[in-house]
Amino acid sequence: MLQVLPFDIEIGQHKVMLNVENARERGLYAGDRVRVRAKGASTTAILDTTTQMVKPGEIGIFTEALKDLKDPKQVDILPAPKPMSLCYIKMLMDNQKLEEDQIRAIVQDIVDNNLSEIELSAYITASYIHKLEAQETEWLTRAMIDTGERIHFDTRPVMDKHSIGGVPGNKVSLLVVPIVAAAGLMIPKTSSRAITGAGGTADLMEVVAPVEFSAEEIKELTETVGGVIVWGGATNIAPADDKLIKAEYALSIDPYSQMLASIMAKKGAVGADSVVIDMPVGPGTKLPSPEAGRSLAKDLIDLGERLGIRVECAMTFGGSPVGRTIGPALEVREALTVLENKGGPNSLREKSLSLAGILLEMGGIAGRGGGYKAAEEILTSGRALQKLLEIIEVQGGDPKVTSESIEVGEQCQDILAPVGGYVVAFDNKRLVELARMAGAPSDKMAGVIIHKKMGERVRRDEPLITICSSSDWELESAVKDAKRQMPIVVEGMLLERYPRVMEI
Amino acid sequence: MLQVLPFDIEIGQHKVMLNVENARERGLYAGDRVRVRAKGASTTAILDTTTQMVKPGEIGIFTEALKDLKDPKQVDILPAPKPMSLCYIKMLMDNQKLEEDQIRAIVQDIVDNNLSEIELSAYITASYIHKLEAQETEWLTRAMIDTGERIHFDTRPVMDKHSIGGVPGNKVSLLVVPIVAAAGLMIPKTSSRAITGAGGTADLMEVVAPVEFSAEEIKELTETVGGVIVWGGATNIAPADDKLIKAEYALSIDPYSQMLASIMAKKGAVGADSVVIDMPVGPGTKLPSPEAGRSLAKDLIDLGERLGIRVECAMTFGGSPVGRTIGPALEVREALTVLENKGGPNSLREKSLSLAGILLEMGGIAGRGGGYKAAEEILTSGRALQKLLEIIEVQGGDPKVTSESIEVGEQCQDILAPVGGYVVAFDNKRLVELARMAGAPSDKMAGVIIHKKMGERVRRDEPLITICSSSDWELESAVKDAKRQMPIVVEGMLLERYPRVMEI
Repeated sequence: MLQVLPFDIEIGQHKVMLNVENARERGLYAGDRVRVRAKGASTTAILDTTTQMVKPGEIGIFTEALKDLKDPKQVDILPAPKPMSLCYIKMLMDNQKLEEDQIRAIVQDIVDNNLSEIELSAYITASYIHKLEAQETEWLTRAMIDTGERIHFDTRPVMDKHSIGGVPGNKVSLLVVPIVAAAGLMIPKTSSRAITGAGGTADLMEVVAPVEFSAEEIKELTETVGGVIVWGGATNIAPADDKLIKAEYALSIDPYSQMLASIMAKKGAVGADSVVIDMPVGPGTKLPSPEAGRSLAKDLIDLGERLGIRVECAMTFGGSPVGRTIGPALEVREALTVLENKGGPNSLREKSLSLAGILLEMGGIAGRGGGYKAAEEILTSGRALQKLLEIIEVQGGDPKVTSESIEVGEQCQDILAPVGGYVVAFDNKRLVELARMAGAPSDKMAGVIIHKKMGERVRRDEPLITICSSSDWELESAVKDAKRQMPIVVEGMLLERYPRVMEI
Repeated sequence: MLQVLPFDIEIGQHKVMLNVENARERGLYAGDRVRVRAKGASTTAILDTTTQMVKPGEIGIFTEALKDLKDPKQVDILPAPKPMSLCYIKMLMDNQKLEEDQIRAIVQDIVDNNLSEIELSAYITASYIHKLEAQETEWLTRAMIDTGERIHFDTRPVMDKHSIGGVPGNKVSLLVVPIVAAAGLMIPKTSSRAITGAGGTADLMEVVAPVEFSAEEIKELTETVGGVIVWGGATNIAPADDKLIKAEYALSIDPYSQMLASIMAKKGAVGADSVVIDMPVGPGTKLPSPEAGRSLAKDLIDLGERLGIRVECAMTFGGSPVGRTIGPALEVREALTVLENKGGPNSLREKSLSLAGILLEMGGIAGRGGGYKAAEEILTSGRALQKLLEIIEVQGGDPKVTSESIEVGEQCQDILAPVGGYVVAFDNKRLVELARMAGAPSDKMAGVIIHKKMGERVRRDEPLITICSSSDWELESAVKDAKRQMPIVVEGMLLERYPRVMEI
């Protein structure tokens, strides 16, 4: 018997730690599985070994396994087999084709936290290097759907929208969802929060309403008002994705087949029949060329067919931000301005109407080619605004919100054009960086207002951008950084100077 | 400032844990690097996030980072860049060629524990899928040598021997090292312990002498008596290897280029000029065909040339065990029997003389083709035995040890042939399994004695093998298991029976 040393730390895994000496005696090594038996309880755990932390005769047990074992004083252990999914991951490394049940075993073990970080990483790395075939990707998607919660609507059709991402200021869901819902279609939109961006749709919506709901609540709210805009991460929809994203983020990779499966699993799990996918193309986005976009579109449409989901993809211009704001509150204010028909940037209005139009056509509300006009009519009539306010209310927000009532950062500072001329370079990534330095997305009021876009004429000392923040010092540091390396370059402007002149 | 929650657990990494809320506010995610600053101390750590373990405003800090920070009460954190080696690992995933400094950065970060398990696993998986080129493998080997301790001998030549492994009972180093040292050559042999086998050379030598020494001690002992047989894992020689092996074991993979580099790094670090590599070929080994062996030999010789090390490879028969024993004490006894010229199996004697002969030729002691005879002369004259006893003494063991004084398990039981006939099948892996079930390698006295090999004639009720152990119940379970599925099959023997008859 081994004396239990409780390691009361949640590490997302069933894990125990033995002294190397004890492990060696038992023919066990780090990474092996062991069956841990206490009085009246047992569990399987991943073994780690140590020379110091745990003395011979002891066993360190982390929180997750401790709970299963009901906080025992003593346990004994037996070697246990590694999960079969490890063999399948090895097959993937060897570029062998996988069967449906093999893929399902991998996904189930990911969801159940049965794989160590080493094993999960091997899966992600192998699936980054070796693309899955279409049939395998379908099985992967189905496994991701089936291992989580699903929503089954009683009526049809159910619409959805997704963006590949990669373009800043892409607040179009705030317009597309209410337009589609106002037309009488259901659209239960789950969105993400920003990871490397300045605000995901969930971060934006949270400015005006709560966004964390269960799958059951999403169904209920959608059936009540036709649509929702909620955070997918709060649900248990396609839960494998969250665990995969965590490791993908750590490795800064986005395995292609896994990306296809993750997108479509979330759509499949909410019961969508028809999905429009926004694919921003251009320098700095995830799709550098239209060819890359077309190839992705083909694969998404094919995967949709296999799952019984109609997919249409819309390649959009991703070379500059959508609209003229970046950052949660600023973006919501801009979206409301368009919904209120009080102006707002044309790029935002056009893109939203185009995407909404496609969904109206897919949902049978408008004939082929008539979607844009139908969407425009809904927007212009004020029905889209009305629907968004209903959605805000049903999610628990204030339905009296207006573009003017949205608070944005009190601290704002302009970055002026040092010379007059035309904008000749425009750096999306820098703009996002500056918004993040100002505090976005967690500081909802932080962000960047863009006054001049590519090719526009600017006079000397006219503002190029305005940076906003709730925090003095974050604003200061963002402004300093903006001046050090300008996100927008006017022809004839001095780009850098050596030796650099420090600003005090 | 964040309140420190000490997580006093060594996890082999600098790691801190934040509440997701705090992390999100700071734009940080699991896997990011952070600079942690306390009063008068700071360190860089890998961030993990949690929803429960750590409350907002707190930070969990594991032992390794706590030490660097001198057990602070409060710290603050700043985002820090990820190590550059991650970019190089990404390049490897993309099958791009790496430069010397890039490979060196990866190896240095592995040695310094700067990579998370997710990142290390991605490196191993990528290097399993994409073989390195010869030039890259050279750089990898050099980096593995340079990031650890090295031995520089004042005189030359320095000989060494390595076995690819995969054949049970391969105790030849116990004969090769003393023969070579008795001839006046230096041979500082570092060996491994068994991982999946029933005894590595280090486990064997430990039966008669201590095997844990520093690089400095290895040099001194070798200069005193000409050779040592020690455990490489106790030194800081090519330390990247231990960390890589841990993750490779967890994934059950052995990346090819990494294997080449690991073998040659250990030889290069002890200052070897001439190395013989034993390559057991045959079913059940790591080299199923002579072609696979030739290709590996070519790569090892080429890598040796690049490093200035002469390499000769000897393909040996790996289809059945070397000698007739498996398990530490049994194998040492068998090796001593041969050294004492009191008999012992021919397969062990022949193989040892062949390998030692190659080293004698490489070291200039014998002319080309004359090595075997020279080695035989040293063995027959008793000088090899004398030298092994000197090595045992200098390592702190008893130089009066003899084949008869070696204690083997008191509990021994024969497995009898159920029918008479010829041995028609012989399962190496099963024999190793049985030796391990009996307690090898940690129970030094446990193991298997083989009475009949492939093709030999056996009478009914003659013993096929004998299983030994220090433990009653381990012996019992190994014997039961041997009878359930026999490792040695005699023609005409009943293999299995359905329904199975349980033995009580």
